[in-house]
Amino acid sequence: MSLLASLSQVLPAETIITDADIMASYLHDEAEWAPYGQALAIVRPRETAEVVAAVRWAIEHSVAVVARGAGTGLSGGANALEGCLVISFDAMNQILDVDPVERTARVQPGVVNNDLRARVAEDGLWYPPDPASAPWSTIGGNVATNAGGLCCVKYGVTSEYVLNLEVVTGTGKLVRVGKTTAKNAAGYDLRGLIIGAEGTLGIVTEITVRLLPLPQDSRAIVGYFDSLVDAGQAVANVTAAGIIPSALELVDSYCLKAVDEWKNMGLSAEAEVLLLAATDVPGAAGQAEAEGIVAAFESAGATFAAISEDAEEADAFFAARRLAYPALERLGPVLTEDLCVARSKVPEVLGKIQEIGRKHDTVLAQIAHAGDGNLHPLLVTPIGDDAARERAQAAFEEIITVALEAGGTVSGEHGIGLLKKPGLSRELSDDVLDMHRAIKSALDPHGIMNPGKVFSLEA
Amino acid sequence: MSLLASLSQVLPAETIITDADIMASYLHDEAEWAPYGQALAIVRPRETAEVVAAVRWAIEHSVAVVARGAGTGLSGGANALEGCLVISFDAMNQILDVDPVERTARVQPGVVNNDLRARVAEDGLWYPPDPASAPWSTIGGNVATNAGGLCCVKYGVTSEYVLNLEVVTGTGKLVRVGKTTAKNAAGYDLRGLIIGAEGTLGIVTEITVRLLPLPQDSRAIVGYFDSLVDAGQAVANVTAAGIIPSALELVDSYCLKAVDEWKNMGLSAEAEVLLLAATDVPGAAGQAEAEGIVAAFESAGATFAAISEDAEEADAFFAARRLAYPALERLGPVLTEDLCVARSKVPEVLGKIQEIGRKHDTVLAQIAHAGDGNLHPLLVTPIGDDAARERAQAAFEEIITVALEAGGTVSGEHGIGLLKKPGLSRELSDDVLDMHRAIKSALDPHGIMNPGKVFSLEA
Repeated sequence: MSLLASLSQVLPAETIITDADIMASYLHDEAEWAPYGQALAIVRPRETAEVVAAVRWAIEHSVAVVARGAGTGLSGGANALEGCLVISFDAMNQILDVDPVERTARVQPGVVNNDLRARVAEDGLWYPPDPASAPWSTIGGNVATNAGGLCCVKYGVTSEYVLNLEVVTGTGKLVRVGKTTAKNAAGYDLRGLIIGAEGTLGIVTEITVRLLPLPQDSRAIVGYFDSLVDAGQAVANVTAAGIIPSALELVDSYCLKAVDEWKNMGLSAEAEVLLLAATDVPGAAGQAEAEGIVAAFESAGATFAAISEDAEEADAFFAARRLAYPALERLGPVLTEDLCVARSKVPEVLGKIQEIGRKHDTVLAQIAHAGDGNLHPLLVTPIGDDAARERAQAAFEEIITVALEAGGTVSGEHGIGLLKKPGLSRELSDDVLDMHRAIKSALDPHGIMNPGKVFSLEA
Repeated sequence: MSLLASLSQVLPAETIITDADIMASYLHDEAEWAPYGQALAIVRPRETAEVVAAVRWAIEHSVAVVARGAGTGLSGGANALEGCLVISFDAMNQILDVDPVERTARVQPGVVNNDLRARVAEDGLWYPPDPASAPWSTIGGNVATNAGGLCCVKYGVTSEYVLNLEVVTGTGKLVRVGKTTAKNAAGYDLRGLIIGAEGTLGIVTEITVRLLPLPQDSRAIVGYFDSLVDAGQAVANVTAAGIIPSALELVDSYCLKAVDEWKNMGLSAEAEVLLLAATDVPGAAGQAEAEGIVAAFESAGATFAAISEDAEEADAFFAARRLAYPALERLGPVLTEDLCVARSKVPEVLGKIQEIGRKHDTVLAQIAHAGDGNLHPLLVTPIGDDAARERAQAAFEEIITVALEAGGTVSGEHGIGLLKKPGLSRELSDDVLDMHRAIKSALDPHGIMNPGKVFSLEA
C-alpha cells in the first residue's frame, strides 16, 4: 500500500490535500530565501484527534511532520521538508472560551492574533503580544516562534502570556503542560520549553493564554531624527531616564518612502529616521512620562519631537510602522534580520549595520523594536538579480557578526527556522547545542518533529 | 583510596566540610517532615571552577550532588541524600555587577534576596520577586524553586526576571543559557527549563536578572473580615473589577495571634481574617485603584476597609504578614501547603480547607498570596505529638485533593522537593511525568543531579 493510501486509512479524505497546485501554497513561509521541499501531503485537521492520528501515522511510517499556522514566519521554520506531512491549522481556528473573571482565553492554534485581540476587547481585556503580522499570523505560529511585537518593551513576549498548552508529543501522546493558575512551580517548565521550539518537540493543538485589562489611556510620541545613530541615542536616553514606554519603534526613511509609494501617507518628507513611542500609563503620570520621552528625544538631537494630540494621527504613524514590511516586499525579496542587542548598544549597532549595507552595495532598510534592542535590518534585492542576492547574503552574515560581537542574539522574536541556523550555531556553544540535541532526542525519539530546523541534528 | 581522599585531590581542603556537627546544619531545609540522609561531605565552593570540579568528581565516582542556598525551602528539595555531596553556596554570595542603564544585575547564587534588593535600590532599581523568606533566602535557591512572593499578583515569579544563567551541567560542562538581551528566540528555553528544576538538571553558578525602576508611589489597603469565605469573595471581587493590585495578601487570626504573642503587635483583636492590598500605580489613578479595592472589600462584607494613610502602619501590617510563618514555627513543626487555584475558586477552596482542618482536629492557619490564588494552609503540630502529626498528614493529603479537584496545582512557588512528590504524581499525567524522566535522562545521563527529588526516576 502506498504511503498516501495508508494515510487515508487513518484520516478523513477531506482533511488530506494532495493536489499539487493547492499544496504549493502550504510549502513555505515568507522567508523567501529559505529552501523547502515537496510535501507528501497537506493535512488540515479539524480537531485534536486528527492531529494525534496524523502524528501516530507519521511515527509508524517514519515521515516528518511540519506544523504551520498562517505561514507568515520569516525564518523558514514552517517550510516543508521533502516527503513530509505539513499539518496546517487553518481549519482549527476557534476561540473556545474567554473567561473575563480569570482573564484567560482558550484558543485553537489557527486563531489569528488580531481576531483574538478583537474578541477579548469586547470584555475589556487585552492579549498583549502584537507581532507586526498580527492581522494574519496565528496564535499557534506565535507560540512556535515565541513571537514578540511592539508591546514587548513593556509587556514581554508570547511566552509570558501562555499558561497552558495541549500538545501532541513526538511519541504520539496527547498531553497538557502548564497550568491555568496564575502561578505554578509543579515540575519542569515544559510549557516554556515547547514555546519557541518551532514544532521540533511537539505540535500544539490548544493554547490557554492569560489576558490583561485593556489599557484605558494611551499617548503617542513622535520624534524625527537626521540619523540612525541619533535615533539610537534617543532610545538609550529613554532607558537611561528609567522610562519603560509601551512601545518604542524605529522606522527609517527607506521604509517610510516604501510605505508612501504604496499608501501615499506622506510620511517620508519629514525625517531620515522616525521614532514612535507610546505610553499607556494613565493620567498625569502618563503625561509626565510622555514629556520625559520628548525630552529624551530632544537631548539626542531630534529635529522634531512632540506628543501627538491627535489619536488618528498617532494611529497612522503606527499603521505605517506595521506596513513597512509588506511595503518593502513589493520591491523584491526581503531578507530579514532579527537581532537583539543591549539597549545601550543600539546606536553603535545601527550605525555598523548601515555601514555594512553600504559596503556590500545592498539596499538596506531599518525598522526596529528599538526600545528592547530588537533590530530588523531588511535587505531588499531586485527580483532576479543574483549578484545583488549574493551581496545581500554576505551583508546578512556580517550583520550577524556585529550582533554577536555586541553580545546580542540572532533572533529576538522570529525564531531560527532555516535562515538563522548558521547564526545560531555561532551564537550558542557546542555544549549548549548538544543540550538541544539531547532534549530533542528525548522528546522526539523517532525524529519526526520538524527535524533539521533550528539546529543540525548531528554535532 | 577513600572517596573523601579522592575528593580532596580535586578540591582545596578549606572548601570541604566533613565535621559531623557542622555538616548537620547543611543536611536539610525547613520542611521539617521531609526525610534526609547523611552526606559524604559538604562542599562550600568559592568560585565556579570549584563547582565544576566537584560535579566532575561526582560523575566519576557516581555520587549524587545536592545544591543548596540558605536552606529556607519548604519542600525538602535541598535535603541531603545518603552519601551525597551537598554543594552549599554560602561562600559564593557576591553581587558581581549592577548595570543601571540596562537594568540588569549579575549575581552569584548565594546572594541573599534582600541584599540584592537593597543594592539595586541604591540605583533606583527594583528586583520584584519577594518571597516571604527574602531576608534569608538566596537568589540561587529562588531560581531552583522558581520562587514567588507578594509581588507576583502583578509582577510574576522569579523566572520572569532571570535573563541568563551560568550552569554546571549533568555532564560536567560549564554553559551559559539565556541571554542578556531583552528578547531572545534563539533555540530552546533552557534557562526556563533549569529554573524551578530544583537542581535536578544542573547547578546554577551565576545569575543575570533584569530589574525594574523602583516604584515611586505606594498605597496600602487594609480589610477586616469575619470569615475566610468573605475574604475570599473580596479577592474574587478585586479580580472581577479588573484591578491588578501590586500585592493582595490574606492572613487569618491564628497567624495574627501567633505574631502578636511573639512581637506584641496588637493585630489579632480586630479581625478573623485580614486582607492586605497594595497598589503602586502613581498619582490619581493609584488613588482610584485603592478606592476600587476598598469598594471590592466592602461589597464582600468587610467589617472594616480603608486606605492606610500612614506608611508606618502599612509597613507594620506587611511585616506581620512576613512574620506569620516564623511565628508559627515557634509553636511546633509546620507542614506547609503551597496550592494555587483559579482566583474565582479562592473563597470555596479556603472554606473547604478550613473544614478539613476541623475534621482532622488539626491546628490549621491560613496565609495566602490571595490575589493570585496561591494558598498556604499551615498545619501546626505540637512538638512530639505523633498522633497530631498523623492527623495533620491526613489533612495535608486531603487539602491537595481539594486543590486538584478545583483544577489547581500542588505548588505555586515552593517547588516539589520531597513533600509534594506524591501530589505532583497525582497532578501530572503519566505521559507528562515520562517527559520529565526523558529530559532528566537527557541532561543528567549519570543520574547524579539531586536524583529522586520532584518525581520518581522510575515510572
